[in-house]
Order: sequence, then C-alpha cells, then structure tokens
Amino acid sequence: MFDKTDKLSVNAIRMLSIDTVENANSGHPGLPLGAAPMAYTLWTRHLKIDPKNSKWLDRDRFVLSAGHGSAMLYSLLHLSGYQVSLDSLQHFRKEGSVTPGHPEYGLTDGVEATTGPLGQGLGMAVGMAMAEKHLAAMYNKPKFKIIDHYTYSLVSDGDLMEGISHEVASLAGHLNLGKLIVLYDSNNISLDGPTDMAFDEDIQKRFKGYGWQYLKVADGNKLESIDQALSEAKENTQQPTIIEIKTIIGYGAPKQGTNKVHGNPLGKESVAVARKFYHWSYAPFEIPAEVYSRFRELVVKNGEVHYQKWQAVFDKYQKEYPELAHQFRTSFANEVNEEWSQKVPVYTAEQQLTEASRATGHKVISAISKCNPHFWGGSADLFSSNKTDAEDSQAFEPENPRGRNIWFGVREFGQAAVLNGIALHGGSKVYGSTFFVFSDYLRGALRLSALQGLPVTYVFTHDSIAVGEDGPTHEPIEHLMNMRAIPNVNVIRPADANEVIGAWKVALASKKTPTVLVLSRQNLPVLPGTDRLAAEGVKRGAYVISHSQKAIPAGILIATGSEVQLALAAQSKLLENEIDVSVVSMPSFELFEHQSQSYQESVLPNAVDARMSLEMGATLGWERYVGRKGLALGIDRFGASGDGTEIINHYGFTVDNVVQLFEKHL
Amino acid sequence: MFDKTDKLSVNAIRMLSIDTVENANSGHPGLPLGAAPMAYTLWTRHLKIDPKNSKWLDRDRFVLSAGHGSAMLYSLLHLSGYQVSLDSLQHFRKEGSVTPGHPEYGLTDGVEATTGPLGQGLGMAVGMAMAEKHLAAMYNKPKFKIIDHYTYSLVSDGDLMEGISHEVASLAGHLNLGKLIVLYDSNNISLDGPTDMAFDEDIQKRFKGYGWQYLKVADGNKLESIDQALSEAKENTQQPTIIEIKTIIGYGAPKQGTNKVHGNPLGKESVAVARKFYHWSYAPFEIPAEVYSRFRELVVKNGEVHYQKWQAVFDKYQKEYPELAHQFRTSFANEVNEEWSQKVPVYTAEQQLTEASRATGHKVISAISKCNPHFWGGSADLFSSNKTDAEDSQAFEPENPRGRNIWFGVREFGQAAVLNGIALHGGSKVYGSTFFVFSDYLRGALRLSALQGLPVTYVFTHDSIAVGEDGPTHEPIEHLMNMRAIPNVNVIRPADANEVIGAWKVALASKKTPTVLVLSRQNLPVLPGTDRLAAEGVKRGAYVISHSQKAIPAGILIATGSEVQLALAAQSKLLENEIDVSVVSMPSFELFEHQSQSYQESVLPNAVDARMSLEMGATLGWERYVGRKGLALGIDRFGASGDGTEIINHYGFTVDNVVQLFEKHL
Repeated sequence: MFDKTDKLSVNAIRMLSIDTVENANSGHPGLPLGAAPMAYTLWTRHLKIDPKNSKWLDRDRFVLSAGHGSAMLYSLLHLSGYQVSLDSLQHFRKEGSVTPGHPEYGLTDGVEATTGPLGQGLGMAVGMAMAEKHLAAMYNKPKFKIIDHYTYSLVSDGDLMEGISHEVASLAGHLNLGKLIVLYDSNNISLDGPTDMAFDEDIQKRFKGYGWQYLKVADGNKLESIDQALSEAKENTQQPTIIEIKTIIGYGAPKQGTNKVHGNPLGKESVAVARKFYHWSYAPFEIPAEVYSRFRELVVKNGEVHYQKWQAVFDKYQKEYPELAHQFRTSFANEVNEEWSQKVPVYTAEQQLTEASRATGHKVISAISKCNPHFWGGSADLFSSNKTDAEDSQAFEPENPRGRNIWFGVREFGQAAVLNGIALHGGSKVYGSTFFVFSDYLRGALRLSALQGLPVTYVFTHDSIAVGEDGPTHEPIEHLMNMRAIPNVNVIRPADANEVIGAWKVALASKKTPTVLVLSRQNLPVLPGTDRLAAEGVKRGAYVISHSQKAIPAGILIATGSEVQLALAAQSKLLENEIDVSVVSMPSFELFEHQSQSYQESVLPNAVDARMSLEMGATLGWERYVGRKGLALGIDRFGASGDGTEIINHYGFTVDNVVQLFEKHL
Repeated sequence: MFDKTDKLSVNAIRMLSIDTVENANSGHPGLPLGAAPMAYTLWTRHLKIDPKNSKWLDRDRFVLSAGHGSAMLYSLLHLSGYQVSLDSLQHFRKEGSVTPGHPEYGLTDGVEATTGPLGQGLGMAVGMAMAEKHLAAMYNKPKFKIIDHYTYSLVSDGDLMEGISHEVASLAGHLNLGKLIVLYDSNNISLDGPTDMAFDEDIQKRFKGYGWQYLKVADGNKLESIDQALSEAKENTQQPTIIEIKTIIGYGAPKQGTNKVHGNPLGKESVAVARKFYHWSYAPFEIPAEVYSRFRELVVKNGEVHYQKWQAVFDKYQKEYPELAHQFRTSFANEVNEEWSQKVPVYTAEQQLTEASRATGHKVISAISKCNPHFWGGSADLFSSNKTDAEDSQAFEPENPRGRNIWFGVREFGQAAVLNGIALHGGSKVYGSTFFVFSDYLRGALRLSALQGLPVTYVFTHDSIAVGEDGPTHEPIEHLMNMRAIPNVNVIRPADANEVIGAWKVALASKKTPTVLVLSRQNLPVLPGTDRLAAEGVKRGAYVISHSQKAIPAGILIATGSEVQLALAAQSKLLENEIDVSVVSMPSFELFEHQSQSYQESVLPNAVDARMSLEMGATLGWERYVGRKGLALGIDRFGASGDGTEIINHYGFTVDNVVQLFEKHL
C-alpha cells in the first residue's frame, strides 16, 4: 500500500522542514523529523480536505497542538497545494510572512488554529469535534450528511503534561466524541531533556480511565502501522481515540533522541549528516517532481472529489430542506437574528425593580437562544450561579447532541479552549461562563480567543467584593483591569438590566473580538433613563447617564456596573452642597476608546479636571480617565468574607465617603 | 476499635457544621454531612498534630482542598482544641471572624492553606509532601528523624476535574511521594448536579496511570474501613495513595445525594429532619461532654506526646549536629545568608558588557544557592531558556531528594501551587519559572501566593516582543500591567545586570509578598551608574538613572527593563535639540509606591507635566505616572513573529521615534 514514492514524500516533508528551519536560523527541527511519517500518512490516506477550497465547511480538521512543529505543517500545506509557497517557507519566521514561528489562524491558508501554548490545540480540537457532533445532529437528515467529518490533532508529550489536556480529554471521553482522533507523537523528550525526569505516566491507563480507545504504534516510521491504526480509530465512532506513536525526535540527525534537536536549527554539519541518512541529494528547498505529483494525486485530486460529492449532496439538501439550509448558511456566516430583543422584558426605573445582572443575563440568553438555533454555550459547573443556561434548551449530552446547554464540568480552562474550537469550526455562536475570579484559570485560552479574533462571549458573574460571604478567594479585584489590558477584548460591566441587554447586543454583533461580560451576583436597580440611553451608550462604551445642570460640570463621577447607582446617589448629595457634577456610566473602556474625539469630549470634557472614578476593583488604569492628579475610588487589596453590604461599606463604597472624598479633592 | 462515642463524635462534627452554616445562613452543609466520618477517622486515629503547638514543624499537614467544606474544618479545629471557639463558629462568614467562607491561611489557627479555588489545595499538598521529602533527605540522620510526617488532602469531584489535579498528581506519582495521602470524597455530585453529566472517568485507572496506589472504601460511613485504608496508605511509602471513599453528599438531610444540599443552608425543616436522623437531641452548638473528651484524649493528649517525643529527639540532634540544627532553624525562620552577593560578578558600564537579564539571573541563582542550602526551585520544562537551574545543584528526583533543581515538567499551574505548598510547609526559600507569557497558565496560584502572603519568587523570562521569531503566542503584552494590578505582589523588571542583582535582593528579603521577576531573553548593556545606584534604586522601585542638567527637568522619560537604554539614548538626542530631560528607571511600581512622598517627588517632580513612559507592554496603567495628558509609548496590540530587533523597531521602540513623539508632545 505504501511505495517508494511515499517514503520519498515522507523524507521530503522532513527535508523541507529542516531546510525551512535552517534557512531561518530559528525553529524546531526535532518534531518534523520524528513525526513526518504519521503526518504524511494522515494527510495522504485519511484527511478529507480540499486544498483549493480550504474553508469547505465539512472538511476534516487538523490541529497541530504541538505548534512548535510549524515547519512541518507549513511543509505539508505547501506540498498539498495550499497557498503556502516555497518563497513563504524561505521567509519562515520573518515579519510579514504567512509562516510565523507558531501557526496562526487567519494568517495562513489551511491553518485551523493558532497553537504553541501547549495543551490548547487539543482543547480546540475537542471543541471542533463537539461542534461537528452538534451540527450533525442539528442538520443531518436521512441520506443527507452535510456535516460528517473527523477532527485530528497531533500532540506532544508537553501537550499531555498540561492540565488542560486532562480537562478536555476527560470531557471528550464523557461526550463519546468518536470522531476525534489524537496522534500522540511519543518521543520521550521535551525541551529540557528526557521526559522521564518529570513525566512517566501510563498514557494508556490514563486515557482508558477517560473512556478513550487507546492504540499504539510501536515504530513511528512504519507507515502501514500508522495507516492501520488510523483506520481502526475511525471505525470506533463511540469513543475518541488516542494513537500513541513511538518516534525518535530529530530522527536522522546526529543528536536524534535528545533535547538538543528540539528547538534549535541543527546547523550545517548536522543537516549534512541527516541528508546523508535519508539519501537526500536534492538542493535545499528542492522537491522531487514525483513527490509533488503524489500529493496532487492523493490530496488535491481526492480533495476535489470529496468536495464535489459534498456539494452535490448539499445542493439537493437545499432543495429538500430550504429552511434548514438557510439556517445552516447564516450560521456559518455568523449572522444573528435580532428578534430576540423583543422577547426580553422592558425595564424602566419607574418599575422600581431590582435584578442581579446575572439574572437579566439569564433572560437575555434564553431569548437569544429561542431566536437563534446556532447559539449555544455553557458553564464550568456553575449554571446555578452564573444563570447561563438557556431556559428552553436541553443539556448537550452524548445521547442528546442537539442539546445546547453545555455542562463543561469544573474545567474552566478546558471550557475556554473548547469554545475557541467551536468558534473556529464555524456554524455556532458560543459562550461560556464561570465566576469572574476564576477567569484566572482560563486566561491562556481567553488570550487565544483574542489573538485568533474569535467572537466568543465570556459571561463572568460574581463580579466584586459584593460576593460577600465566600470571601477573598471568590472576590475579583484585579480582574477587570486585567481583562481590559488584553488586546482585542471588549470588556463590558453593565450597570443595570438595560445595560446588560446592550452588552449582549455588542457581543452578538462582534465578528472578530471576544466579549467579556462582567455581571453582578447582587441585585441592581434599573437606573433612570437607561431604557432610552443604554443601547447606544453601551455600544459607545461610556455615556453621560446624568448630566450636571451646567454646560460645563463642576466635576465628573465615572463609574461602572453596580457603582453607577452609587455615583448617582452621590451626585444628588453633592448637588445639595451646590457641587454640580455629571455622572458617566462607563461599561466599557475599549468601546469608548473606539469613539470619535468629539464624542469622547462630549462625555468627558477635557477642561474638567475634577474627576473621580468609582469601581470595586484595582485602581491602576483608572488614571487614564481621572489623570494622575485625579481620584480613583477602588480596591487595591484583597477582599474579605462577610455580609456583602457590610463589606462594600467597609471598603468605602458609600455615598458619604464618595461625597467626602470628592469634596476634599476639589 | 470504634465505639459509640466515636459515632457520636462523627455526628457532632456533622451537627456542629450544619449549625454553623444554618446560623450564618450561608455556606456548604453537603460536604460535612458526607465526609465527617473520614475526617474524624483521620484526625483521631492518624493525624500527627499538636493543637496546642499548631506550628510544630514536624506535624502532619492536612489540606482541605475542597475549601467550601470550611464549616467541617472549623468544627474539627474547635473540637481538637485549636484557637477556634464556639463563638467563632457562631460568627462563621462574618467580617473580622477567624471563620471566613473559605479557609484562609494565616487567619485561623490550624488552617494549613487557603483553599476554595478548586484543585489548588491538592497542588499545595503535593508541594508540602515534596518539602517533607526534601527536608528529610537534607536533615535527617540515623536515629534522628527530625522531619518525618505525612501530608493529607481531602479532595472533591470538582478538585479532580480541574486540570491542575492532573499536573500535580502526575508529578507526585513521578516523584514517588509515598507520604502523600489523598482522601477523595467521592459523592458523584457537584454544584450543578450529578457529576455524570460531565465527569465519568475511572479514577482508579487514571491514578494508577500516574503511578499512585489506589484504594477504595465502598461505604464512607464505615469508620473501620476508612481507618484500615489509611493504615494501608501509610504503609506504602513508595507511592502516593488516593483513597476513593464513596459518600452521600448531605447524608441525613432530606435532599441528600443531590446538588440541593451542596452550597446552601439546609433550612430549618431539613435541619430538623437531619437531627432526627442522627438522633441528635442537643441544642444548636451544644456538644456532648464525651465528644470533647474523646477529642482531648485522642487528639490533644496524643498530640502532646508526639510533640514531646519530637522535641526530645531534636534536643539531642542539636547537640549532635549543631550546624545542621542551626541551618534547620534559620531556614524555618526564612533567613537568608547574604554572602551570595559577593559571589556574583561586578558589573560596570565601562566593561561594555551585554548580558541577557535571564543570564544574569542564572548567575545570581547559582550564587544564592551556594550560600543557602534551603534555596531551591525549578522550571516548567524551560530550564534551558529561563536559565533558572542552580549551577552546582542536582535535580530533585525520587532517588535524589536532596537535589535542588526541580523539574516540574510542562506544568505551569501545578508548579505554582507546589511552590505555594513548599512555602507553606516552611524550611525552604523557593522559586519557579516559565516564559512570561505562560504566566497566564498559573495566574490562579500566583494569586494564592499573594493572598496567603507567601514570599515565593517567580522568574518569568522572555519578557516582551523582543522574543521575536516565536511570535505573538510567545510575546507578553498585557502581562506586566496585569501582574502589577494584583494586590501584594512585587513586580520587578530590571534594566540591566545590576538591577537583576538588586531585584533578587528584594525577593530574598521578602517575608510576606511574592516577587515576580521579569527578565529579558535578549542581551542588555550594563547601564552607566547602576553599579552604584541599582541596589538602592530597585529597592525603592524607581530612581533617576540620569539627571537633567537643570534643577527642574524639561521633561521625564520613565522606562523599565530593556527600554531604559532606549530612554537614555533618547535623552542624549533630546539634549542635542536642547531639550534637557531626566531619565527614570522604574523597575517596580509597587516598591515605588511604598516610598515617602518626598522620595517620590525627588524622582518624579509633580511640577513636571511633560512625561513619557517607555515600556514594551500595554499602556493602560502608565497614566498613573504620565497623567491623562501624558504620553505612553507601549504596545496595545499583539506581537508578531520576526527578527526581534526588526519587530522592536516596527513597534516604534527606536530613538528617533521616541524623540519625535516627545518633541511633538511638548
């Protein structure tokens, strides 16, 4: 089944990869030399892709979780006819090239995910497999399998050491993700040396414990064995499969089997030795014609056939199920049905209603869900607290893959990586949730949402010391400002129900930016005027929620979330003392900074120096708006356990204290 | 072996816990009702503690990883004679009490670790067991076992779902931590409902895969079975043991076995039912005398005997091994031998040397290590890059527990929790390391270093876009400002070799605050004057590294790390243009903010408004020093893959750009 040309092709991947690294004088040659056979076998014998149509919805997904092996991925993409030229390979790791140090989604044709931060590639692959399972259940009909593909991930020892690998593998096992297949490049070496210095688990036992199928290929150079294992993995559609493939890192190089070949170019002499080992007499970057034609035949041509078959099925499907087909297309186009906003209550201050913003969030999610069958999400075992289950939806479970409430378990980091994977897959609008303080657990994946430009929505509840009794381990302090400092994230902390609705509108409209919604545990009153102002105000990041009576206010109180009501109360009190200030509600720094200078000036007139910010979180960063001589009421120490209201008072968030501080400051 | 009074005592723990929760009208009754038997058996039959001497160095450690079960822990502490009064229990979750919502280290007598954020308690327990193994190897002598104790942790389903549980369990298995014993309260319920909605792993297979001993107690109410399992666990000193103990959450309450009893008070009626179930006729908070005396006998009195025995051994040890005993005592007192600073090179600008700050860091670590046998630490598989191995030290391995370079594997979060555990145990000065960008993976544990007041040192290298080729996944942007916003963390980004030495001095002197050292991958020149200025300058957080020639400068350039050299070059160029500015090196915001107003004024005169900050990271937060009308040169988007120097230039960190921006700003 495998011939000389196959072997030549495997070596072509190896040589192209080390030429690429050597030419750049930077990169990782070890993985490609060891893992080329498994990659080749997968790509030419199993992977259902159409390189000329690389965004085809029903393609198999391949995620190189061990992203440092990027040179191998780029070599495969080049040989398979993706838009990755030899010239690009020769500009590996150069500014502006499509071949950056680690694979970047959106930058390079055929790259399915940004990887490099270990473990997360596997997490995103799990998300893709969940998306496949869910969409197949949603859209497939007898005779019409419009979503029916596998998700593959290539992982390293390092990936499996990371905690996130546990979270997502356990979840995948629970969900019976039978179409998830993981190739484990098991070479017993990590960056610092032999893995047995720190890592000697029995992967078979561990993954069987998760409910996976475990297969082993003892010799990672045997294409037949790899091929057979892949076939066996595909046959088992009830369990995810991990194939442990024993390889030798840097195989063929003088220092093969050691960490010396992991992360640095081999150097001229070693490259020469490797070339000799592989009987490779071609010039650097020269690929034998038969290799190109083998890829053309097995990948490109087969890919075209696959795609055409699918297109034919889909054409018929559109006729037979026009509504579903429409929904399918709009879902992949990331469109949202906005009618949901008519299904949420109208909130006015006159009702004198108080409602926790997490509770409003629950109503909003339920409404969005009703009007948008592609909207789904979940919680890391905190549905009851986050209030993020959609009312009319069921749990997404192995027996019920149409379900749209995802029970992630106590797996925050895994949750976030999975959300990224679902978003990357396409066809869904997704969200996740946990306590705001535990956003710390998932920071690595939230950053990858932002870096990849994925419009994932994070709902973080229990947003401050107002949490009260649970104490400092459960009370966010630095988190708001932390989130704001991440590039390409819209952080929104709504002040009341109307701002929650506005915030979700922003989140749903986003195409390239994740949204972080920061919601309260405690009840908040509906504020005067937000029924008119909040939709536009939230979109613009900040707005004057209560004007001073003068053209130029005597000062400005700027607040977010639950502190806006405090600012309004302080405003009244100050006015009694003949200090006439305006109050600005500023749910989002980022959105405000995208506004025109004139809008910004209208909200925060430059001439007004007497400014005070009110937010139950770290003050560092508020100087952007209050200035270095300004006044920031915040919290720069940890919280405390006690009655929420008492704690809030104790930390100085009272009308009297605000008034006193502001008057002193004037 | 167990009699009626034992059973009464178990029920006393249950009733005291639910009285405590009920009285507070807040808390978690489910765990205590289910887990009281295992806790009782452990505390009365196995745990080697002396409640009257709760800081005794050789006590067994007990970490309640499932920190939400705090009411049970406080009940145990009360009954065992710690300084936790009935009155304290009656002030559970009230401000200022010693009984906060989740256990807090340092606040409550007998609490060994702050827990609540799931998974981390187990991680800290692993760290404590590592400390025990290491210190035993360092100090014990034939006939003198001055360190010889077990570490126990009680974990929940949620703990084992968290990724960190994988990292630390795998590490513990690798290290053969035979004196680590985990009691797994296996009740199949988590906050949202039955765990089988998300979690159905085979814990036995999983932990055997890690190399642990697995034991099972089928009925968590059988004290004899628990006792026997604990004995068996203790006998196996070659493997850590997990004892899966099947329990019923909220046992005895009407809604037992469901998530309804997890996190809310039971309510009057349910409490009445539970009382009836347990035939409990005592008033709330009333404890039968025989229960107190049982605890007095088994815990308090035995504890005194244990301690006295140990003290006798230690007295002799001091005579036989006075030097070791002295070292042992000073180590536990967290003292540092400062002679190390004579073992690092003298750096002057005249040498025209350039050295990466991570490379200087390596020399410093090696020097500290030589003079301080209690100083140890490691890296999450990045020794070769972080340069954090101590030169003359060996690896800490199962066969070589005296080794002081810890190979954590690719387990950042686990690493940080373990460091916390080692610090909590006492007797060590510890540090860990990884790439700065991957501090995202360990944020949850770094926060617990700060909250617990543990002087752990984090060495984060590859501090900016200067990383270059590895690209945006490996280039920190928001991380510096993120770290600065966490309460009780000293973040230091040194500008050159002398500042690195100064930074380590601060880290070593710290008793209650973790230190984050942010070091460069690329070479940095030794700057003029730092040989004189840096030690004091770093300690004070910021200092004028180059004065203007006027009394009041025309402006101030404030920079950190690798950007200080840029600021100095820009200063010269500006002076050519007759703009006479000073340059401030500001390695640490926090340390600067602790200085007197007059010192701060001497560095950053209030009158000078023309200020510019230079730092290759997020700008949000720099307004604290440059003001809202000031100028912050930073990076508010993601990095890029390419040659480091080119990327730096591209992002505007050139002398010309600085000069141009500053002149325009003036």
